[in-house]
Amino acid sequence: MKVLRAVIPGRFQPFHKGHLQLVKWTLERVNEAIIVIGSAQESHTLQNPMTAGERILAIRKGLECEGVDLKRIYLIPVPDILMNSAWVAHVKTYVPPFQYVVSRNPLVKILFEEAGYSILEPPPFDREKYVATNIRLMMIKGEEWKNYIPRCTAEVIEELKIPHRLKKLMERD
Amino acid sequence: MKVLRAVIPGRFQPFHKGHLQLVKWTLERVNEAIIVIGSAQESHTLQNPMTAGERILAIRKGLECEGVDLKRIYLIPVPDILMNSAWVAHVKTYVPPFQYVVSRNPLVKILFEEAGYSILEPPPFDREKYVATNIRLMMIKGEEWKNYIPRCTAEVIEELKIPHRLKKLMERD
Amino acid sequence: MKVLRAVIPGRFQPFHKGHLQLVKWTLERVNEAIIVIGSAQESHTLQNPMTAGERILAIRKGLECEGVDLKRIYLIPVPDILMNSAWVAHVKTYVPPFQYVVSRNPLVKILFEEAGYSILEPPPFDREKYVATNIRLMMIKGEEWKNYIPRCTAEVIEELKIPHRLKKLMERD
Amino acid sequence: MKVLRAVIPGRFQPFHKGHLQLVKWTLERVNEAIIVIGSAQESHTLQNPMTAGERILAIRKGLECEGVDLKRIYLIPVPDILMNSAWVAHVKTYVPPFQYVVSRNPLVKILFEEAGYSILEPPPFDREKYVATNIRLMMIKGEEWKNYIPRCTAEVIEELKIPHRLKKLMERD
Amino acid sequence: MKVLRAVIPGRFQPFHKGHLQLVKWTLERVNEAIIVIGSAQESHTLQNPMTAGERILAIRKGLECEGVDLKRIYLIPVPDILMNSAWVAHVKTYVPPFQYVVSRNPLVKILFEEAGYSILEPPPFDREKYVATNIRLMMIKGEEWKNYIPRCTAEVIEELKIPHRLKKLMERD
Amino acid sequence: MKVLRAVIPGRFQPFHKGHLQLVKWTLERVNEAIIVIGSAQESHTLQNPMTAGERILAIRKGLECEGVDLKRIYLIPVPDILMNSAWVAHVKTYVPPFQYVVSRNPLVKILFEEAGYSILEPPPFDREKYVATNIRLMMIKGEEWKNYIPRCTAEVIEELKIPHRLKKLMERD
Repeated sequence: MKVLRAVIPGRFQPFHKGHLQLVKWTLERVNEAIIVIGSAQESHTLQNPMTAGERILAIRKGLECEGVDLKRIYLIPVPDILMNSAWVAHVKTYVPPFQYVVSRNPLVKILFEEAGYSILEPPPFDREKYVATNIRLMMIKGEEWKNYIPRCTAEVIEELKIPHRLKKLMERD
Repeated sequence: MKVLRAVIPGRFQPFHKGHLQLVKWTLERVNEAIIVIGSAQESHTLQNPMTAGERILAIRKGLECEGVDLKRIYLIPVPDILMNSAWVAHVKTYVPPFQYVVSRNPLVKILFEEAGYSILEPPPFDREKYVATNIRLMMIKGEEWKNYIPRCTAEVIEELKIPHRLKKLMERD
Repeated sequence: MKVLRAVIPGRFQPFHKGHLQLVKWTLERVNEAIIVIGSAQESHTLQNPMTAGERILAIRKGLECEGVDLKRIYLIPVPDILMNSAWVAHVKTYVPPFQYVVSRNPLVKILFEEAGYSILEPPPFDREKYVATNIRLMMIKGEEWKNYIPRCTAEVIEELKIPHRLKKLMERD
Repeated sequence: MKVLRAVIPGRFQPFHKGHLQLVKWTLERVNEAIIVIGSAQESHTLQNPMTAGERILAIRKGLECEGVDLKRIYLIPVPDILMNSAWVAHVKTYVPPFQYVVSRNPLVKILFEEAGYSILEPPPFDREKYVATNIRLMMIKGEEWKNYIPRCTAEVIEELKIPHRLKKLMERD
Repeated sequence: MKVLRAVIPGRFQPFHKGHLQLVKWTLERVNEAIIVIGSAQESHTLQNPMTAGERILAIRKGLECEGVDLKRIYLIPVPDILMNSAWVAHVKTYVPPFQYVVSRNPLVKILFEEAGYSILEPPPFDREKYVATNIRLMMIKGEEWKNYIPRCTAEVIEELKIPHRLKKLMERD
Repeated sequence: MKVLRAVIPGRFQPFHKGHLQLVKWTLERVNEAIIVIGSAQESHTLQNPMTAGERILAIRKGLECEGVDLKRIYLIPVPDILMNSAWVAHVKTYVPPFQYVVSRNPLVKILFEEAGYSILEPPPFDREKYVATNIRLMMIKGEEWKNYIPRCTAEVIEELKIPHRLKKLMERD
């Protein structure tokens, strides 16, 4: 039987418990999930503090601790391309063959639909609670950001000193 | 204890038994190996027939069948940057923190050395026998290329019809 | 006698009746008009919904129905270049030799003037009425956008389902 | 009835009588032909002497004199993208919707086939006789290049002084 | 003895008396100052009116008139790179070997610190008074911008007609 | 009186005594010479071993020792642009206003001529003797390369260990 794969695109700045639910939900529907780490070239900004490599490490350790089978997961960084209409082809180049895309984002959905892919639209998964922008703000303010993030992901983020980086980026010059 | 990681850069067009030996040799020396799939943007040429995503799939299935612990492996595509002196920083962006580079390539060694990394120089591993250029030629001529490639990598390559793609690229217009 | 040509730069998202007047006005002054479709790499956003190819089709069919002689028209897509001071040279590369630029845009005028071209500054042509941003908004709201657009351009836009694309891009994720 | 369109990709350095036959052959099979002027960013080299804009002018005037109906022709410059697997999506962005590709080039055929397009493979049309490389050489040597090129295309090329440019590029420094 | 060098990154739109103090302060601490003219590709906008070459000329003539020893100064334009984590390596490519970075900018400091450089943090030097944004506004309004700028820098800026360029960019289309 | 400036484009891999003669020859004809260090993004190859910053340092120290007045010299790195027809505009962005170009290179001459600049064609200056390619070869072979290079340029090149870098790049992997 053919292996079914779904792409999960995101920036994962940072990977949080909502994302974790999304990955688990996807693995109930396909054989393998391809987590596409978008805007891979970005880092060291308030919007995108982590490098692609740091995000890969944080996601992987998080998934592993939560018992997700890493053999069913691909973690693939994809840099931005400044041409929406070629973005799907660009993503396709970087990842193994796939049939589905998991996303609620209108642009992602329209681009993959026009390219002939099926969309797996997931439920919103407490999206008021798990919001990456808010979590980055909590890091800056020194609030309890770790509650919103898988335990081992949080450990990696601390070890990499991402909250410290965010605080420094907030300083006035 | 700190996790030791080594980067193994290559184009892997295709991943062959020499590469497999290299990965095993590396895993005897560090905790985790980061296979950097270089020239990730290239595909559909005689030199670089496979896309980055196809190479990821082929390497991963090959490693898995050979009993390599995938939890100790990162497979990360990195596109070319047209500036040698920024290449190490570029690779660093895409991968988790690492201490070593596994390579015999003079340019790779000089660039990582100047950036302060330690080089792990592997033995040549039958390099007269396992040569990607020759393997691609065998694919074109219909010769026994599968002997030179890990079994499950070869299966993926067949399923993806890479020899067929190479043959078509060789046709006269 | 030397053929006189004028460049008309714009994004044409979408081409409207104000643009049509501009083209006709230009053809009264030169032999051939070169419509430069700028930001050619952009599409699938609220600001730039149409691809360059879709814009070419929509403009051409619009001009044809309105009786404009296509033999006197060039429709040429030009992608952005991230360097204002090289933009004129960039445009020159993509288009046949020309002597004039038709524009009221301050940046366009300053760049072409510094490069030694003559500016043909057109009258404003009901510019309160024909505003591309408003027309895109009407498409989203389902209002009477077709009144503002040449008839056959509107037909192409409907056939390409651009209003539908815009509505989808407006959805919440 | 749906309008049938075919893409004819080439560099057209320069457009010759073989290309003219190709366009005519295409117009017998579809309603509209889209001539894609590839490597649009290239010029002023021995391989690619003409700019995209110069090529557009030369092709258009050539077609017009030969009685080809310009209303059925699109002339669209497309710059190179350094990623074969995204090239078809890139071309699609720049051109109106199409169903066919006219080409004998193996890479072009494989890329469009993988993207789901039908290939119209034309006959070779005296390809020993009409070879762009040879025609450029004749220009350099001052030989009878005009026999190989549509009459009005040749006139444009002379007016643009392309043979002179080629000769200057051949000078020793 | 080893030559000590410090990099001073900025956009210098325009170079003002605060910048001049910064250069002098730096020359009291190292042998040679490398003025890195960032966003070198930008020009002809309200934020970045001057080209890199114009900025080089304006800074150099300003420093010379103020008695700064040009033999101790490097003026080097560096275009943007869209990858923060590779920016330091990018800057290193363009400039002679250096040990220090002179900056109060949080992003600049964090990036150079992570790359192992020492930061020389200068005092704020009347930064309420010398603000490039305000000086550009004064140019637009025709106010007394010359008081804020080294005398010969101001002369170059006038000769290059930068205030005129800014005013034209502010016009309505 | 207007300041006369001439651009001297080159790669300067490395700067040799022929280049020195060229600079002196230029300074007899104009007020200021702008040395454009082309292919600025290149380094660490056999063709282009030095970074732009290393070349700037080597040229400057060489000129200074030879008594050239640095106040009349600009040393400006310019990265490649992949579009010949926009190259002159690209160079113009990076350098102060100029009237002349000093070059014997056919492509450089044709591009600047088409852009309306005057060419100052220098004599060949022992060009059989001073050939950058040969000098790099001498560095690799350990031969007497220093005879061909201004004394202080040679000192910088030694301090930067460029011959060592070249030798390492020549090693077999």
